[in-house]
Amino acid sequence: MEKMENQKPAIQDEYADDFAWCYGCGRLNEEGHKFRTTVEGEKTVTVYTPERKHTAIPGFVYGGVIASLIDCHGTGSAAITLHQKNGGTIGDGSTPPRFVTASLSVDFMKPTPQDVPLKAVGTVHEIHPKKFRVETEVYADEELCAKGEVIAVVMPASFGG
Amino acid sequence: MEKMENQKPAIQDEYADDFAWCYGCGRLNEEGHKFRTTVEGEKTVTVYTPERKHTAIPGFVYGGVIASLIDCHGTGSAAITLHQKNGGTIGDGSTPPRFVTASLSVDFMKPTPQDVPLKAVGTVHEIHPKKFRVETEVYADEELCAKGEVIAVVMPASFGG
Repeated sequence: MEKMENQKPAIQDEYADDFAWCYGCGRLNEEGHKFRTTVEGEKTVTVYTPERKHTAIPGFVYGGVIASLIDCHGTGSAAITLHQKNGGTIGDGSTPPRFVTASLSVDFMKPTPQDVPLKAVGTVHEIHPKKFRVETEVYADEELCAKGEVIAVVMPASFGG
Repeated sequence: MEKMENQKPAIQDEYADDFAWCYGCGRLNEEGHKFRTTVEGEKTVTVYTPERKHTAIPGFVYGGVIASLIDCHGTGSAAITLHQKNGGTIGDGSTPPRFVTASLSVDFMKPTPQDVPLKAVGTVHEIHPKKFRVETEVYADEELCAKGEVIAVVMPASFGG
């Protein structure tokens, strides 16, 4: 049975195959987190339940996994936003732009409990047509545990592909 | 055969067992990265070679793993610094203080190539006796690929233990 968080169409479902191997959000990376980012009204949302191994101190989620969630939620949110601006919709079969992370910051506001789904909620700001700033809040059981920001830029040619 | 980067004594070897389960740097977490932080002169150093699965775009390292490296290198570097201030030395058998991350930021300066050891080099600044700022540069084959900063604080009682 698929987890609940994996049922709604996500922007990562539409990335070109060559760019769908990300350890955070690549649908083709069987060993990765497979973060999946969707739209809810004006916000972007990624829901993910860390595994037991993703511990910091027993009982609490490892910050590097929270940072990873914010990272891929940021690039996914930027991709959604530019894709929609270009007339695309998640699930229409068209290939969205692929973003990479220029910078990432995370404030860990309180210890994040294990064994509950984390919900990353993003607000996207356009800096210029190929560069977006995504503010993200991460909730565990409705409690705000971390805040983060990603500067996402359209993937430069130096990444090949 | 152990990897070269795992031979020198590291601060994480000395963490109390209850706090040695971190997915990033816990020696007891068999599924984690097992980052290990040592001293070189005035700097702290963590060397780590990401696995093939830790990809962003094929050929390049996933940013979330680089953020994780900077995160645990930061808490480890702060632990080394306070441990030494308290008269301890890595390997003397005394238990160092355990830090957690209050905030983390990373600037991804260029795509980080896969299949080479990454070297995180840290500079530690004391903010107050229980709070340190660690500036970290991450090199791949002598090339600076990312810069980061961690604010690390002595683990509060809310983490239990």
